[in-house]
Amino acid sequence: MHKIKVNLKERGYDILIGKGIITRSSALKDHVSGRSCLVMTDSNVGRIYGAYVMKALKNAGTTAHVVSFKAGESSKNIDTFGKMLRHACRAGLDRSSVIVALGGGVPGDVAGFVAASYMRGVKLIQIPTSLLAMVDSSVGGKTGIDLPEGKNLVGVFWQPSLVLIDPSVLKTLPKREIRCGLAEIVKYGVIMDDKFFSFLEKNLYGIKKMEPNTYGKIIARCCELKAKVVCADERETTGLRAILNYGHTFGHAIETVTGYGKFAHGEAVSIGMCMAANLAIQCNKFALDNKFSQELANRQKYLLQAIGLPTSLCTGISPVKIYKAMFKDKKAEKGKLRLVLPVRIGKVSIVKDVKAEDVMEAIESVVS
Amino acid sequence: MHKIKVNLKERGYDILIGKGIITRSSALKDHVSGRSCLVMTDSNVGRIYGAYVMKALKNAGTTAHVVSFKAGESSKNIDTFGKMLRHACRAGLDRSSVIVALGGGVPGDVAGFVAASYMRGVKLIQIPTSLLAMVDSSVGGKTGIDLPEGKNLVGVFWQPSLVLIDPSVLKTLPKREIRCGLAEIVKYGVIMDDKFFSFLEKNLYGIKKMEPNTYGKIIARCCELKAKVVCADERETTGLRAILNYGHTFGHAIETVTGYGKFAHGEAVSIGMCMAANLAIQCNKFALDNKFSQELANRQKYLLQAIGLPTSLCTGISPVKIYKAMFKDKKAEKGKLRLVLPVRIGKVSIVKDVKAEDVMEAIESVVS
Repeated sequence: MHKIKVNLKERGYDILIGKGIITRSSALKDHVSGRSCLVMTDSNVGRIYGAYVMKALKNAGTTAHVVSFKAGESSKNIDTFGKMLRHACRAGLDRSSVIVALGGGVPGDVAGFVAASYMRGVKLIQIPTSLLAMVDSSVGGKTGIDLPEGKNLVGVFWQPSLVLIDPSVLKTLPKREIRCGLAEIVKYGVIMDDKFFSFLEKNLYGIKKMEPNTYGKIIARCCELKAKVVCADERETTGLRAILNYGHTFGHAIETVTGYGKFAHGEAVSIGMCMAANLAIQCNKFALDNKFSQELANRQKYLLQAIGLPTSLCTGISPVKIYKAMFKDKKAEKGKLRLVLPVRIGKVSIVKDVKAEDVMEAIESVVS
Repeated sequence: MHKIKVNLKERGYDILIGKGIITRSSALKDHVSGRSCLVMTDSNVGRIYGAYVMKALKNAGTTAHVVSFKAGESSKNIDTFGKMLRHACRAGLDRSSVIVALGGGVPGDVAGFVAASYMRGVKLIQIPTSLLAMVDSSVGGKTGIDLPEGKNLVGVFWQPSLVLIDPSVLKTLPKREIRCGLAEIVKYGVIMDDKFFSFLEKNLYGIKKMEPNTYGKIIARCCELKAKVVCADERETTGLRAILNYGHTFGHAIETVTGYGKFAHGEAVSIGMCMAANLAIQCNKFALDNKFSQELANRQKYLLQAIGLPTSLCTGISPVKIYKAMFKDKKAEKGKLRLVLPVRIGKVSIVKDVKAEDVMEAIESVVS
């Protein structure tokens, strides 16, 4: 079992990673005993794991209800938010209650926002069941929903009290979702850990074969890296936390322009990282310290491709449309883009004054 | 001009109270210059004061938009919340932008919640225009909306960066709304300042005649008292802040049972304070320290009546229904009521184990 501490003082919490952990009551006991609980999940995850979690909660000494909504990013909206809040109310939750977010990024974000705003905030336990949620969204306190105008435009910071990760649930995950999680995992390597990037390159066999041992190590390392960033910049104010958005400003724009659903989040981020890498080369072309080379961009691209992730867009998608959609991103401040660009494998920097034509060229560079 | 500091460290802010302050740019300048602003207001207040505030913002060096929704408590819902968020998005607001809440409690609460959750939080300036909002909701960081199941069940804590109070706007306020504000003002006297309570008793003439000088003093003192409580218990965790809910658990239940709209909030609180006072007498009947007497309850009742506030419910309203509705209140924890009861004029205590029959008797005691 891996245990990672997120040192946020009074808002600090543990991430526990272990096979079968969601079926055991021991980890839950201190957090739920004597409190009423509501498990929020989606229609897919609820069907498979809802009963296990409910049983563990019961054994931990709580009365729990479960509520689920239709699986998919399209449920991450204000309508679902309102319905879940009314469910919390009808389940009799009070200020001492606990909301358990069970599922991938969507249940995690929606249930997190509900926990943050129901009666101005109740306890939250994250039980991520997608690889993406395990290594990213369940840690760090970001919660939220989408607007028709763009992704994650609404939400608050609300740290969980506990994160439980059971790598054995990955076996029921569609391959496509595994690949999406791996996009974020590659991201951690590029932005802050070159050794971890090499580890991924060397362990492609284990990654593809879904070796539990390999995934245990990968998830634990990603959670450590994420916890480090979150502790240094809890509310994304110093700029450090922004490095986690590598590939995301492009990625969100791709999702917006192609319509949520065509590309999964991780796929859009994979393409976005390729755009960002090409832009880094573009920006460095006339600089003396031409650090990020085509070779490094290729290393990233080959790893993403080896995993089975897309690294290009098909023709027919307008680079200008994607460029314009990037300004709807929360990272755009006062009408200016703030982009995370690689300096080398294991290090990125935030760039604020990129020329429109360079950005569009970088977008175009991956259209095949 | 009165200036009150709310000492919440990095979340601290000033409350500025002065005639004509909403038409001047000087106070706004430091907070809005170079940022885009969106004024959120309701159809009544926007019509009267929207243009003044927009002009002041323009002079303070910002581009501002204004958006309004239908006036009234019925707008304080998830639908309005969603619409306002989309307006913020379409107005091009980014993380550095400022939302200005202009109006009574409803615009303050809704715009506050929008500011707290748009892109996970942007700056908020409160410009309360109702007496109730001036002395209560604009200070302290509570934001939120109602659910069909009950009032203020959804929201977060989000402190404003500035509160501007212009007592001269009270002249356009309907008399009924003035009375509602006065209910909360009487509350401050009962819960924490007997001298202030006496001041109100002695200044009934000035209160009724809408003397600006009297109101300036009253508003400033209430803001001071509220700031004191908020600084001691920002997130309502130590219990101290709960004293501000005196009369409110009863009041909210009255509003729920009679349907939002029949009684205005302040009117329901006025009746709720009478219920709480009667319950205090009831609870003390067999105690040795029979502090809160019928005489004190009458003093409170006479002051409320002199102001023109209701102190009783007409027959036909079921005490049991009101009692049951009290459990939907956020102050009810683990199925138990936490009630704020007066000990004397100027002091209250939190009581957790009141008998159902005593509460119902207190409710009945004001049915005439």
